[in-house]
Amino acid sequence: MTRPVKILAFAGSLRKNSYNKLLLQAAAKLLPASAQLEIVGIDGIPLYDQDTEVLGIPQSVKRFKENIESADAILITTPEYNHSFPGVLKNAIDWASRPYGHNSFNGKPVAVMSAAPGLFGGVSAQDQLKQVLVALNMHVVAQPAVIVTSVHEKFDINYELVDADAKQFMKQLLANLVDLTRRITQSEEWLQEAPLSTQ
Amino acid sequence: MTRPVKILAFAGSLRKNSYNKLLLQAAAKLLPASAQLEIVGIDGIPLYDQDTEVLGIPQSVKRFKENIESADAILITTPEYNHSFPGVLKNAIDWASRPYGHNSFNGKPVAVMSAAPGLFGGVSAQDQLKQVLVALNMHVVAQPAVIVTSVHEKFDINYELVDADAKQFMKQLLANLVDLTRRITQSEEWLQEAPLSTQ
Repeated sequence: MTRPVKILAFAGSLRKNSYNKLLLQAAAKLLPASAQLEIVGIDGIPLYDQDTEVLGIPQSVKRFKENIESADAILITTPEYNHSFPGVLKNAIDWASRPYGHNSFNGKPVAVMSAAPGLFGGVSAQDQLKQVLVALNMHVVAQPAVIVTSVHEKFDINYELVDADAKQFMKQLLANLVDLTRRITQSEEWLQEAPLSTQ
Repeated sequence: MTRPVKILAFAGSLRKNSYNKLLLQAAAKLLPASAQLEIVGIDGIPLYDQDTEVLGIPQSVKRFKENIESADAILITTPEYNHSFPGVLKNAIDWASRPYGHNSFNGKPVAVMSAAPGLFGGVSAQDQLKQVLVALNMHVVAQPAVIVTSVHEKFDINYELVDADAKQFMKQLLANLVDLTRRITQSEEWLQEAPLSTQ
């Protein structure tokens, strides 16, 4: 029995109409045919407090950890706040790495994308985030860097991504994420994929 | 009328018996005579959500912003989680930098210390945090680096810091923070301080 590569995706923003959430919707339409994307929110995850952890992992964190653990690969979209990624995203990651010895991200391939209102926001956020992901023993897909700048100009009024370049880079990053997942796991169970054209 | 240099201090951990909170208590006893330290918690600050911000800044965030704005300098103690500082700390910083154009940290001198259970935890957390603080247009006191490693061995049973080296480094960092604050503000109102011995 073969099966698709399962990618779990979440955005580092709680805002309802967040562009980084929209980017996940767009990514779902740019996947290789052999992959599927599940989008979850980090909205219900409380602030990390070790005193809380000792009493028991909150249900929302348990669900988040189970979603991560049952995925083959991870996709994160992140805005940039103050030269880094949001505290709310780091907080969700901190929880998923706990309790000690039970890091749900361990060994998983991961790709990062950013939507930014300006011209370069996202670069520093991704730099800091990727350092954290490496420290979590994840396999970071480094290329292509995907930052959808001036993002408000790149979605139409139906919240559909309409920028051809952004779509091409996202498509390539997602293909690279799936390819890395196949290579690392060396599993026989994956659906086969037609080779990507080299563009 | 002269007055002391007011330092606002907070720890990047919510745990009640956090070593980084204890470090703030210890710092209060190692200040130059011309300075005073006020310790606040970041416990009540909710997760940042721009949809919430648009409805109005939460009271806990307002108080935190006012505390920061009325201080002359800032002291932050931070643990290291996953190669960086905690999400809960970044979240509090994100809030205090909002709304757009009303960054409460703007122009303030800041020093950072870490308590760590192991031998090197804190280095990467401080690196990432200092990048964020610079992006907030703060003046970071770079030296000495203060990381109290194997911290559980350095407090006695009354939660008193008893490690002479740690105390000496903390004392120097606090003196440097106060000195930088005096130089940057070039105010006439500061209490005078006897010059520090060079060791």
